[in-house]
Amino acid sequence: MSHPGSIKGGFMLLEHIKELLPQLRSNATQAEESASVPKANVELLRSVGFFKALQPKAYGGLELNISDYAECVMTLAEGCASTAWACSLLANHSHGLGLFSKEAQDDVWGADPATLVSSSVAPMGKYQEADGGIRLSGKFGWSSGCDHAQWAVVGYMGVNEIGQPGPCYALIPRSDYTIMEDWDSAALSGTGSKTLVADDIFVPAHRCESLLGLNVGMSKGFGVHPGKIFLLPYSPVFSLGFAAVAAGIARRTLAVFKEKTSNRVRAYTAARVAESAAACMRLAESTCEVTAAIELLRKDWREMDSGCDAGKKPDPEQVLNWRVHQAYSVKMSIAAVDRLFAAAGGGAWFRSNELQRLFRDIHICGNHAQTDFDIASLTYGKHLMGLATSKEDY
Amino acid sequence: MSHPGSIKGGFMLLEHIKELLPQLRSNATQAEESASVPKANVELLRSVGFFKALQPKAYGGLELNISDYAECVMTLAEGCASTAWACSLLANHSHGLGLFSKEAQDDVWGADPATLVSSSVAPMGKYQEADGGIRLSGKFGWSSGCDHAQWAVVGYMGVNEIGQPGPCYALIPRSDYTIMEDWDSAALSGTGSKTLVADDIFVPAHRCESLLGLNVGMSKGFGVHPGKIFLLPYSPVFSLGFAAVAAGIARRTLAVFKEKTSNRVRAYTAARVAESAAACMRLAESTCEVTAAIELLRKDWREMDSGCDAGKKPDPEQVLNWRVHQAYSVKMSIAAVDRLFAAAGGGAWFRSNELQRLFRDIHICGNHAQTDFDIASLTYGKHLMGLATSKEDY
Amino acid sequence: MSHPGSIKGGFMLLEHIKELLPQLRSNATQAEESASVPKANVELLRSVGFFKALQPKAYGGLELNISDYAECVMTLAEGCASTAWACSLLANHSHGLGLFSKEAQDDVWGADPATLVSSSVAPMGKYQEADGGIRLSGKFGWSSGCDHAQWAVVGYMGVNEIGQPGPCYALIPRSDYTIMEDWDSAALSGTGSKTLVADDIFVPAHRCESLLGLNVGMSKGFGVHPGKIFLLPYSPVFSLGFAAVAAGIARRTLAVFKEKTSNRVRAYTAARVAESAAACMRLAESTCEVTAAIELLRKDWREMDSGCDAGKKPDPEQVLNWRVHQAYSVKMSIAAVDRLFAAAGGGAWFRSNELQRLFRDIHICGNHAQTDFDIASLTYGKHLMGLATSKEDY
Amino acid sequence: MSHPGSIKGGFMLLEHIKELLPQLRSNATQAEESASVPKANVELLRSVGFFKALQPKAYGGLELNISDYAECVMTLAEGCASTAWACSLLANHSHGLGLFSKEAQDDVWGADPATLVSSSVAPMGKYQEADGGIRLSGKFGWSSGCDHAQWAVVGYMGVNEIGQPGPCYALIPRSDYTIMEDWDSAALSGTGSKTLVADDIFVPAHRCESLLGLNVGMSKGFGVHPGKIFLLPYSPVFSLGFAAVAAGIARRTLAVFKEKTSNRVRAYTAARVAESAAACMRLAESTCEVTAAIELLRKDWREMDSGCDAGKKPDPEQVLNWRVHQAYSVKMSIAAVDRLFAAAGGGAWFRSNELQRLFRDIHICGNHAQTDFDIASLTYGKHLMGLATSKEDY
Repeated sequence: MSHPGSIKGGFMLLEHIKELLPQLRSNATQAEESASVPKANVELLRSVGFFKALQPKAYGGLELNISDYAECVMTLAEGCASTAWACSLLANHSHGLGLFSKEAQDDVWGADPATLVSSSVAPMGKYQEADGGIRLSGKFGWSSGCDHAQWAVVGYMGVNEIGQPGPCYALIPRSDYTIMEDWDSAALSGTGSKTLVADDIFVPAHRCESLLGLNVGMSKGFGVHPGKIFLLPYSPVFSLGFAAVAAGIARRTLAVFKEKTSNRVRAYTAARVAESAAACMRLAESTCEVTAAIELLRKDWREMDSGCDAGKKPDPEQVLNWRVHQAYSVKMSIAAVDRLFAAAGGGAWFRSNELQRLFRDIHICGNHAQTDFDIASLTYGKHLMGLATSKEDY
Repeated sequence: MSHPGSIKGGFMLLEHIKELLPQLRSNATQAEESASVPKANVELLRSVGFFKALQPKAYGGLELNISDYAECVMTLAEGCASTAWACSLLANHSHGLGLFSKEAQDDVWGADPATLVSSSVAPMGKYQEADGGIRLSGKFGWSSGCDHAQWAVVGYMGVNEIGQPGPCYALIPRSDYTIMEDWDSAALSGTGSKTLVADDIFVPAHRCESLLGLNVGMSKGFGVHPGKIFLLPYSPVFSLGFAAVAAGIARRTLAVFKEKTSNRVRAYTAARVAESAAACMRLAESTCEVTAAIELLRKDWREMDSGCDAGKKPDPEQVLNWRVHQAYSVKMSIAAVDRLFAAAGGGAWFRSNELQRLFRDIHICGNHAQTDFDIASLTYGKHLMGLATSKEDY
Repeated sequence: MSHPGSIKGGFMLLEHIKELLPQLRSNATQAEESASVPKANVELLRSVGFFKALQPKAYGGLELNISDYAECVMTLAEGCASTAWACSLLANHSHGLGLFSKEAQDDVWGADPATLVSSSVAPMGKYQEADGGIRLSGKFGWSSGCDHAQWAVVGYMGVNEIGQPGPCYALIPRSDYTIMEDWDSAALSGTGSKTLVADDIFVPAHRCESLLGLNVGMSKGFGVHPGKIFLLPYSPVFSLGFAAVAAGIARRTLAVFKEKTSNRVRAYTAARVAESAAACMRLAESTCEVTAAIELLRKDWREMDSGCDAGKKPDPEQVLNWRVHQAYSVKMSIAAVDRLFAAAGGGAWFRSNELQRLFRDIHICGNHAQTDFDIASLTYGKHLMGLATSKEDY
Repeated sequence: MSHPGSIKGGFMLLEHIKELLPQLRSNATQAEESASVPKANVELLRSVGFFKALQPKAYGGLELNISDYAECVMTLAEGCASTAWACSLLANHSHGLGLFSKEAQDDVWGADPATLVSSSVAPMGKYQEADGGIRLSGKFGWSSGCDHAQWAVVGYMGVNEIGQPGPCYALIPRSDYTIMEDWDSAALSGTGSKTLVADDIFVPAHRCESLLGLNVGMSKGFGVHPGKIFLLPYSPVFSLGFAAVAAGIARRTLAVFKEKTSNRVRAYTAARVAESAAACMRLAESTCEVTAAIELLRKDWREMDSGCDAGKKPDPEQVLNWRVHQAYSVKMSIAAVDRLFAAAGGGAWFRSNELQRLFRDIHICGNHAQTDFDIASLTYGKHLMGLATSKEDY
């Protein structure tokens, strides 16, 4: 499959991903047990061009528009949420790397454009100024998909373009960090979100960027690529997969609940659960809720695309909306799953029952700092109310 | 203003309605106290062409697409919900009447195309076969806007096109019925949704239709007008205003809450409420919820329009989705308002405070048979579960 | 009925109040329309001894225990919520007045122990020190039941027993203030919660107390009465009626919903609503929720009584619990009513339908500063988390 | 510890259980990994007399009252929910067995009064009449704690005392059934709720009872013991542990959330989570909700005890209330945990973090047929509405 996503935008890629779903589902237990995305899954996704989705065309990428790409992530989560979570981050990072300096991009993709980059974006690292760059140390947790990456973007509190302290990112090669085998999570277990450890390594300046720079078009690589998607800031693209994964899990839950409920009989009474008004109403309400959650996301995806089409960077109001909508849609997706799971019976907890995995996986989707609705809604609400927001609000 | 909606679809109409909002707001108390839409409001809406929105072009109508029209209804509700509810029904009925026989349409619009039609669609009438039509008696409640209509569509249990008992509608002139002054509601008080009384009147066959016929393209007037919107069934157009009104009320509540909260100080502590994290988070969550509710509606409005553009009648699955989405979005709009009202303080209940009217009005929006989520979700859930649905479910 | 509450604690009073309910219900519209508790209702309550419930025995009162009294308030609200709200405040104030100086109590009850006291407790007044007391001016809003009182307790920011600025209360006679006819509320309309206006009046020191003093046993009258209930602080007794009224409204709503639903038929389908699974489940869940709300309150009422029985003032932790439980139970009662009202159909909004009044009335119960769950839960949560709380939190 | 519960009712037992909590917590991972209650836990509970709580005094039991016993179960769940779930069932069964024939009780306890009985109460078995009893076959799932029991009560559809088909129970010895190693649940993993298999075994009539008989005082052993608790029907005692366990998990979650939040710092911003208004309000609301859930249960436990004290069997209305209250309180406990977990951050999912186990465990508490609120509320709602209930409703 030479140019998998090139025909009709992302349509071909979406179709290819749908074909992979049975295989991804049968690998899901392996993903959980190995606490990492199975290599086979990564190869399947590579074979259909998934990782090229947001990569600059200059390196052989597809530069899909956001709507097409995000639909792929959502569908991927219907097969294996852990794979979707980790691999969409690996794929998103191509957009982010496209905002780094040309030199940094060549470091990563020059020899092999199929090289993948994982990340750990909380600013946990400590740095010192050094000649031509910085020296960096730190333990960088939650690096989803790191087993499959040759580079990593890791966070530290540095100084941004306007001279203020702020989160910064360093791009570092696999040889500069070790991976701790410390991922032992009871949800999204297959993401392999392990801790990276760097000990006093040198990072040249061309591989350092501030979050501010990446988000307002002041990064070293802004303007390097003519592709429209590189008008978009780093953060909303980085985080868009979280909500898409949650929506995909929710959509899958609707299908599994429906199928299992159709066949379920109450142990005590032999009553057919499918004929229960409550079960039908729960399915109906959750279906509506998931549909609304997805439409909210799609509105923003279209808005991202139409802004790009018009050659404009988004304004801060839009970015704030996108962020809170992502968090809110995750909340809706979780609520939709909870409503069904509550009526799924004790058997839903058997490990052989996909529902319990879906339930566990979607809940952690709402526990990420980017999707925590308390944080997002406080920031957004202060903005709506015309109040100043502070660091603590984000 | 000769052709108010003719430029760029409904854009002009929407702009004109926005200009009317201050006047509508200042008439809102009068609407409540008189228990009817003020005549001034009807004239204002007539002056901008609102009632022509869905009227056939053959009678001077605009045949706006659904998206454009529905946005107008939603915005209208930001001014006066009672007016929006009653007048959108009066306007929707032009679409429905466009599905009746040519003769029936001429009866209503032949002499004066500005003639308005109210309705009472629950099948409460009793009929007898008569030569060339039926004889009909009944008390027909909830006829919103009837004070401003010269005709009415009223419901009775008749026999439909496939020979089964089912809801049918008779179109009757003002001279054939009296209006009871019995509207005494504590919400949407200004709709003037009074009871119509007909006593053994004759209705010719050309003014009778079945709900089934109107909904599946078997009515006497199906195909009379080339306009695309007449491919749409009666029911989803009839009911679309309910959800749009609820969304408009919710959007208005966001604005009023924000404004009042900005200025509010707690009586006991002199604390500024706007600085409360809880108030900000409530505003944020409700804003997200209203946005999602509206996006869900807009998806369906676009779907209605794109189906029409393609020259296709919608399939039953779509119609079912539209209906449950309308009910679900009303539920979301209500929840969004409740969240704000709960934190608005006792002063929100003063009659001089718009919030209490918004609160009362939006709650009745969810009490209509078409928007009752218990009914809609049971029907939809049974469909999703693959079960047969029965009369009782609707 | 000479000593209505004297036998078996409040048992007789509760029975007497139950007998009054039909009369109170038939007066409810009058209460709403006159925006005041009907004089007839006050006389009915006086005839059964309701206002003596918490009055010191020294003035002919009953000194009922809290559990018995609160049950009476809850039941009273099943008849007329406005009457219950206003008259329970009038009755509660006897407890509060019992904590003022003996001289102040004699001022009020010396000539006529049946004299009632209304209040306005937000510290809105301005004062100046004067010889032997203060000079006070202010507009004091929300004085429920003031039409039936000869005295009022009004709030101002003064200086408390430990020399800090804090809310204080002045007890003033009817001749010192005027009542504005400004009560125009869309909920609890019958409480007559009008604004009192005082213009540079003199209040002798023996009629001034601080909230702190009243709440920690430092008031001038603490210890005057041997009755156990006078060990309780002012605030939890003052506010206990709010939650009891909400619970009573909710309990009444369960009964009315059940009765109306039993007879209700869907207009469109003639389906019996009572047979709808959703209606049954809503009734069941709301019944459970109201039961739990009431049990939470009863636990605290028993705790108040058992503390008194043991001769102990409550510790601050208990008082904090009581307050947040009152607010939380109001929230539960409102949720229980909302669940039923959402499924009650449009007819529930007719003014002739008691449900709409119950719905309006219960919502304002949650809008009082004492029952606002945002305020109560923030304060309580900070306490639980071991954080300092500030003035703004209360 | 010879007579652990004998002093002041259950007070000593409760104190002893509190002392066991640290040990139970440190065994929790072992319980999960071995998919069974650790033998050490069973021995600890035996050492304090827990299994004697509801055992007839004739066999050395304590016959604690229900309130005292249920508090012990709730507290036990704060240590290890799996242990509390399985062992409270083992202990409850002593009450149930006390309603079987004297001969059956001697079969179990004659030689060793410390013998434990597990159960599988859904009527999954098939039987044939046989001389002096029945022949029974079946796979009986969900037999919590079966590894520690020498007997089992298993369900089949038989014929009850009034000659109608209905659920019946057979008491069978360990030698008559095998235990399948099929328990692989992602929640309450440590309960060891495995499947029992019986193949054409003989059960003598004195070891067979119908559910009806056990619930209305018509069983063979009704009246055998003078102890008051044997006036209580089988079902409400059998199921009381489920709600108590859920409440215990919720109470533990409050404590763990508070402790972890106190120390938690947001990775991205270094903000202290404990100072977040949202975190405080979530903790406050969940604390209120758990308190209300527990008070609802305690009301019923007291009611059970006071009925027994008065020498009365409960009436059907009470039993129906108890059942739906158990289910509703579980729902409240789950909601309280969900509210906290949603704000606990991604780290809450680490297997080393107790929160994720509490979250998993409490959710399955609501998935049991006895606690499924859809089932319980439909039955209860029909009863409240005055409708007949049917087999399918239970």
